[in-house]
Amino acid sequence: MDDADLIEHTLTSELVFDGRLLKVSRDNVRLSDGHEAIREWIAHPGAVVVIAVLENGKLLFERQFRYPLNQIFLELPAGKIDANEHPLDTARRELREETGYKAKSWRHVGTMHPCIGYSDEHIEIFWAQGLSYVGSELDHGELLDVIEMSVSDALLAVRDGELTDAKTITALLWADKVFSGAWPLPD
Amino acid sequence: MDDADLIEHTLTSELVFDGRLLKVSRDNVRLSDGHEAIREWIAHPGAVVVIAVLENGKLLFERQFRYPLNQIFLELPAGKIDANEHPLDTARRELREETGYKAKSWRHVGTMHPCIGYSDEHIEIFWAQGLSYVGSELDHGELLDVIEMSVSDALLAVRDGELTDAKTITALLWADKVFSGAWPLPD
Repeated sequence: MDDADLIEHTLTSELVFDGRLLKVSRDNVRLSDGHEAIREWIAHPGAVVVIAVLENGKLLFERQFRYPLNQIFLELPAGKIDANEHPLDTARRELREETGYKAKSWRHVGTMHPCIGYSDEHIEIFWAQGLSYVGSELDHGELLDVIEMSVSDALLAVRDGELTDAKTITALLWADKVFSGAWPLPD
Repeated sequence: MDDADLIEHTLTSELVFDGRLLKVSRDNVRLSDGHEAIREWIAHPGAVVVIAVLENGKLLFERQFRYPLNQIFLELPAGKIDANEHPLDTARRELREETGYKAKSWRHVGTMHPCIGYSDEHIEIFWAQGLSYVGSELDHGELLDVIEMSVSDALLAVRDGELTDAKTITALLWADKVFSGAWPLPD
């Protein structure tokens, strides 16, 4: 099938919920076969996730309560990109605020899209090395627990169903491939 | 930090958008430190993703336009769980509808959560083997392109930024670990 046969064209777009975090739109679209359809979707500012590698080879993880699932998740440090903020600055800020660590060396390793069916969110994956502890600065009302875990233990947690967060699993695939030497770290 | 220090308690909950797909709520919550906060979140019926292994060892993939990102994505077969549907039945139905294949052997290998910050969506990961082509039954208005790709080529596509869909990357980690013999397939 040609790309042109897959693409959908916007006919109308209406902002149906304008929240603090979520901006929800309902659009009418035309498909290449002439049919029309409704698409409900969320405009998101984007986010970052950080693979922060300690001197001992372990990564910094967080245990954080996630309200929509009423559950505590094991996840890598992460956060939303502020307006006009460069994603690398978001990564530095979130690592510092949430874990209290600074990093000497930063690399952007990739992008992932968590919810392509109903959100335009992109998550930029960063690799941080040369860590030093300078003290955390948690946002008002941000409660979380910072722990260290090896990549191999984190992968076992994925296998055993104890680690299910998509951005963290995606970043762990990168960490696994880089640590095994299969993939180079980007410059 | 104790789990009790991480948990948030619902004070009020309001359905602020009741769409065909998206049900958006705005809740007031109380944190363990006594502060209150607002949580905007989406109730989702859940979904499945299918690792469908052909006789030649390649997996079935799809190229599909995703409206929120205005982009064609390379992804594994997937779809939403209907009301009162068992996720395995969703997996059988979506594989048949989207690719035209039936499978003799099905296994549930894991669960992932794509958007823990603002959605309660869970995606059940299934492994399908013993495939035979019986003809596709695409939903009205569902346009997609089915292709075969090896796990190793798909992983290179992740490395090179050509495959960024979270559910597909998560499933590829499973496929990589099972094919390499590192993880057993669940019974």
